[in-house]
Amino acid sequence: MKNTFGGNVTVTLFGESHGPEIGAVLDGLAAGIPVDEAYIAEKLRLRRPAGKISTARREADPFRIVSGVFNGRTTGTPLTILIPNGDTRSQDYTFGPVRPGHADYTGHIRYSGFEDYRGGGHFSGRITAALVAAGAVLAYALEQKGIRIGTHIARCAGIADAGFSERPEADIEKLNRMEFAVLDEAKGAEMRAAAERAAEEGDSVGGVLETLVTGVPAGVGEPWFDTMEGMLSHALFSIPAVKGVEFGDGFALADMRGSEANDPFVMRDGKVETATNRNGGINGGITNGMPVLFRCAVKPTPTIRKEQQTVDITKNQETTLAAGGRHDPAIVHRARVVADCVTAIVLYDMLATRFGPEWPGGAD
Amino acid sequence: MKNTFGGNVTVTLFGESHGPEIGAVLDGLAAGIPVDEAYIAEKLRLRRPAGKISTARREADPFRIVSGVFNGRTTGTPLTILIPNGDTRSQDYTFGPVRPGHADYTGHIRYSGFEDYRGGGHFSGRITAALVAAGAVLAYALEQKGIRIGTHIARCAGIADAGFSERPEADIEKLNRMEFAVLDEAKGAEMRAAAERAAEEGDSVGGVLETLVTGVPAGVGEPWFDTMEGMLSHALFSIPAVKGVEFGDGFALADMRGSEANDPFVMRDGKVETATNRNGGINGGITNGMPVLFRCAVKPTPTIRKEQQTVDITKNQETTLAAGGRHDPAIVHRARVVADCVTAIVLYDMLATRFGPEWPGGAD
Amino acid sequence: MKNTFGGNVTVTLFGESHGPEIGAVLDGLAAGIPVDEAYIAEKLRLRRPAGKISTARREADPFRIVSGVFNGRTTGTPLTILIPNGDTRSQDYTFGPVRPGHADYTGHIRYSGFEDYRGGGHFSGRITAALVAAGAVLAYALEQKGIRIGTHIARCAGIADAGFSERPEADIEKLNRMEFAVLDEAKGAEMRAAAERAAEEGDSVGGVLETLVTGVPAGVGEPWFDTMEGMLSHALFSIPAVKGVEFGDGFALADMRGSEANDPFVMRDGKVETATNRNGGINGGITNGMPVLFRCAVKPTPTIRKEQQTVDITKNQETTLAAGGRHDPAIVHRARVVADCVTAIVLYDMLATRFGPEWPGGAD
Amino acid sequence: MKNTFGGNVTVTLFGESHGPEIGAVLDGLAAGIPVDEAYIAEKLRLRRPAGKISTARREADPFRIVSGVFNGRTTGTPLTILIPNGDTRSQDYTFGPVRPGHADYTGHIRYSGFEDYRGGGHFSGRITAALVAAGAVLAYALEQKGIRIGTHIARCAGIADAGFSERPEADIEKLNRMEFAVLDEAKGAEMRAAAERAAEEGDSVGGVLETLVTGVPAGVGEPWFDTMEGMLSHALFSIPAVKGVEFGDGFALADMRGSEANDPFVMRDGKVETATNRNGGINGGITNGMPVLFRCAVKPTPTIRKEQQTVDITKNQETTLAAGGRHDPAIVHRARVVADCVTAIVLYDMLATRFGPEWPGGAD
Repeated sequence: MKNTFGGNVTVTLFGESHGPEIGAVLDGLAAGIPVDEAYIAEKLRLRRPAGKISTARREADPFRIVSGVFNGRTTGTPLTILIPNGDTRSQDYTFGPVRPGHADYTGHIRYSGFEDYRGGGHFSGRITAALVAAGAVLAYALEQKGIRIGTHIARCAGIADAGFSERPEADIEKLNRMEFAVLDEAKGAEMRAAAERAAEEGDSVGGVLETLVTGVPAGVGEPWFDTMEGMLSHALFSIPAVKGVEFGDGFALADMRGSEANDPFVMRDGKVETATNRNGGINGGITNGMPVLFRCAVKPTPTIRKEQQTVDITKNQETTLAAGGRHDPAIVHRARVVADCVTAIVLYDMLATRFGPEWPGGAD
Repeated sequence: MKNTFGGNVTVTLFGESHGPEIGAVLDGLAAGIPVDEAYIAEKLRLRRPAGKISTARREADPFRIVSGVFNGRTTGTPLTILIPNGDTRSQDYTFGPVRPGHADYTGHIRYSGFEDYRGGGHFSGRITAALVAAGAVLAYALEQKGIRIGTHIARCAGIADAGFSERPEADIEKLNRMEFAVLDEAKGAEMRAAAERAAEEGDSVGGVLETLVTGVPAGVGEPWFDTMEGMLSHALFSIPAVKGVEFGDGFALADMRGSEANDPFVMRDGKVETATNRNGGINGGITNGMPVLFRCAVKPTPTIRKEQQTVDITKNQETTLAAGGRHDPAIVHRARVVADCVTAIVLYDMLATRFGPEWPGGAD
Repeated sequence: MKNTFGGNVTVTLFGESHGPEIGAVLDGLAAGIPVDEAYIAEKLRLRRPAGKISTARREADPFRIVSGVFNGRTTGTPLTILIPNGDTRSQDYTFGPVRPGHADYTGHIRYSGFEDYRGGGHFSGRITAALVAAGAVLAYALEQKGIRIGTHIARCAGIADAGFSERPEADIEKLNRMEFAVLDEAKGAEMRAAAERAAEEGDSVGGVLETLVTGVPAGVGEPWFDTMEGMLSHALFSIPAVKGVEFGDGFALADMRGSEANDPFVMRDGKVETATNRNGGINGGITNGMPVLFRCAVKPTPTIRKEQQTVDITKNQETTLAAGGRHDPAIVHRARVVADCVTAIVLYDMLATRFGPEWPGGAD
Repeated sequence: MKNTFGGNVTVTLFGESHGPEIGAVLDGLAAGIPVDEAYIAEKLRLRRPAGKISTARREADPFRIVSGVFNGRTTGTPLTILIPNGDTRSQDYTFGPVRPGHADYTGHIRYSGFEDYRGGGHFSGRITAALVAAGAVLAYALEQKGIRIGTHIARCAGIADAGFSERPEADIEKLNRMEFAVLDEAKGAEMRAAAERAAEEGDSVGGVLETLVTGVPAGVGEPWFDTMEGMLSHALFSIPAVKGVEFGDGFALADMRGSEANDPFVMRDGKVETATNRNGGINGGITNGMPVLFRCAVKPTPTIRKEQQTVDITKNQETTLAAGGRHDPAIVHRARVVADCVTAIVLYDMLATRFGPEWPGGAD
């Protein structure tokens, strides 16, 4: 379904980096859900470039909700958010040599040469602002129902952050206020320093994002195809530069034995829980009531100043490219807000599919 | 969409482990595609248990195609494959103590206690026989169009296989004839020995599957949501025990710099290619014409003879469980056939979406 | 989505007239819904040919439910019904001269000559047996929730039946036991006589079906696209020979004035109702709590013994055709069972979409 | 899927009558399709109120395409059209007494009282401007491929127009330039006079629209569910006030015999055609290459000045209502533009599904 995601609650993305506006349409929401514009603005602020390791492009992201909200609550009809593009420098982008690791070449083939190539067009990370705005509406609604989502930079430039603590909800609350979201701030400082060094060398760094969701009830997801893992990964791979997704202990499970990988079931306060959470809160594609935990591998930003070998597709000729324009030497800290919001989109839809449209987030 | 996957070409799965029949409906196929029953039978044979490290359950898998094929070719109407269940021992399964790491508990919550719990019911790995049969129809059609899919056991019980060689199509051909598909047979022997040791100890092992697809044209996939990575991972997480999916160098990309992770574009024989393939043949969610490469983390089989702590959900009481019944101490070698067939399902659908229903596999 | 209908609760149809089996997969059902096989058998019996005005083909329709039901209730996983084909005479069907008014020609073009042309193949009215079986499961579930569906032959061979009485639920109960469902049995006898006369002349007759649904709650349907009228008509046009669908007073509304066509709102026993029901229980695409009422125009059966002008598509040459084989001179009485079941499919899905999967028909 | 229609080419509608902007997102278009803004503007002009029998509300409809078009051609990414709302008088709308025949009551129930009730909100005929704009993009693309759509007011206030002539393409060309589209202008004058008389009496009139499409190739549509009739009717019932849809001779077929209703196949210039077109160009749900012909019953505009009995839903009390605000005593002439554009949406999607995204309308 191309630029629409979801079964019962859908998000449709549109816009190009250098067009007048980008945006998203959220459909299938119950009527009466409170919409907090300040919450959306805060998520957009956290996604915006900040500091030395982000592009110099500055965008205030003054979004407008043009439909679907009346007197501060959803009407149940499509909710549309528009975000004007400002501060674009189309002249920085010339067409011809395609950026290695980027979608320039594949977009050119996919769209037969008719793509809007300016600033990455519809492929630009800019579009994630619309994704974040839509996801923020749902993340806020989920919070009202006791479901909380938080992501930290588990790894950046080869430096590892600490893991989530015994009090994950406090961790999440803290992370959601941070511009460079780490659990161990000393490690965060090291990461930033490493990213700055890469930037000075005209290069970029990648990392790993780890997301934790608390409060997800058991019994959400399907055994085949629309597994919780399948639905989340489907959407998470839309975050530019994500090249891997793993749940619970993920790839590390491959080297374990069953007796080690299985999470024993225990009774706690009259409730079934698991003693460990190596499966990331999911068994057989369905949530088991434990926190949902997963990690996304984020490759280093493909656009770099350093000279690279490439091809000029207008001439079908080899050439080199040292990218001009404004770019992020690291996007992992911005991508984590996108990860949070994409997670909200998937979870909200799956909860609405499992429990009906009035849950979660319907009028109280 | 629950038990249906796909946009233009869809697969609908049905059946329970101990019901009379399982099956699949393939819809949206072009008319006139040759259907080779021997090819399907061979894929089913490779999926079947074999040797010491597989369950003792024996099934001949004598499938029947009951609709959608006429005179050896697709009619363009739904193609339905039925596989009778045989050799079931329902009495081996008792309901109460849920197996750690398995879907017993989550299925019970998801289906409110009405699930068919015998032999894992709809959650059983048995259902993958239907998935394989449906995927085999498409894998065969893709082969006619020059697209070849092969998977090897890149890792099992901590032992690593060799990687794909410079001649990947020869590798694929060889793998598709092997019951325990590895590129280095000495390593394969070590893996099997390790799995047998685990079995003797009442335990199980996991592994990593690596899939390579050659012949995929550039320009397939969407920039948002229906990315090639997102679509493949969506379906791959349906393979029981898969807990991670990564493309190209995947999680290893997170520690690289951009100058290292980017695949330089080069001209080869007048065609744009990349010098390396760290991105697994996909840029910006769209294929770039290089082989598509990805890996799935397969956790160890959750059902083991070893005693584990768990809960009896009929009594909400802690207990222990040493699983009876017949189980696989390793499923990685069987799962690889499922990986091939799931890959065929996703690719066929995406190619039909990109190029229209008559491609690929339409009447020649 | 081709042979699948529905959003949350889906029906997938498969099979050909002369294949071994036809069937349907019902997915998205809540777990715990009682399934009554006798109820399904009765609907299949009513759909079967009976008397002089139906084809001589006899089918016992001994369906099998092969998945999704355990201990008499739905498991929540796909429910598959298989119906074997018996008593087929493939030799009666020769390929070449296409039947006017039938799908022979369009099917040949649509499926590029690879269609299974025997007995109409996938186009055969035979496939409606699977549609009826699937719809019967849902009709039964709806009845448990107080929603009742009934259809009468409002018109046949130019003869009009009486309309629904002031006690529509009693009418529905009576209709659902009748093989030739009319409200005025004297008119029914006239209709049958007229159909028999047409049959003697090698010709066929058509008619109009009128369906009434009681107990549908207000607030179901969407203002755009997935209107109640749009969803019902989408599915109703699948009933072979249906060429028109109208709601409430339908085409007669076109000649009225607004003051006449509008149904005044009134309070009855503290509940909002309408004094009349010219809009068929639907305003703005959404149910208003009054009975849902609509009519389907059924054209006369296209296959007739009378000689007709046509084309032999194997020779691209004009010819004449006097159809052999066994055919129904009237199908309106059989189609009404299909209309009931198709209505159940659409309503069940829309109710599940509006109120969540556990409603209606979830375990009590 | 609520406010989204289509399988491969989708239209998503959003907006409320008194919100800042309404709009539509068109997704799934091939890249390189020429987009003619003047053509869109002309369709919007024809939809706009004109003359005595339309609401006094005046809107210039200065739409903006904010994404998906680059250098006058589609980019293949979502095409978004925004239309600002102007000249709204929210104070004319008070909430309480619901308009008979309108969606006020059902919308209130459907959206739990959170609906934007001003000017009909998301239910307003105003939203059809977005539908027309989106459909106009596709209608233009279809014209480039030789497919032409035209609708006339076959009936209004009980007065019948002439039918299509032997030269339907000339008829269509003429109709598409007319504000009150009839084939017999004398009859059109009578219709307008009758509508004006109704308006003077505070009442409204309805009618029947007849749509003809030439140039549709044979073989488009599916035998079950996604029949050409089912898909068209699904969308056509979204046109406010449509209560019936019939194809070819529609309800009149019900009284014919098979020998009369069947269209004989003939050879014309080496091509298979039908001698008559009583089936509206569709057999078995699939186009047969003849012009596609159907009619929509449009009920009289529900909002009238005349006093009507109704209920005040804020008090659950009977009351009367004489609607203030600005309303159309007839909408049939405006609805015909909507019918054209909805037809374009459905056909384009079905053609793209049948023949692949690059057809029709891909880059030449």
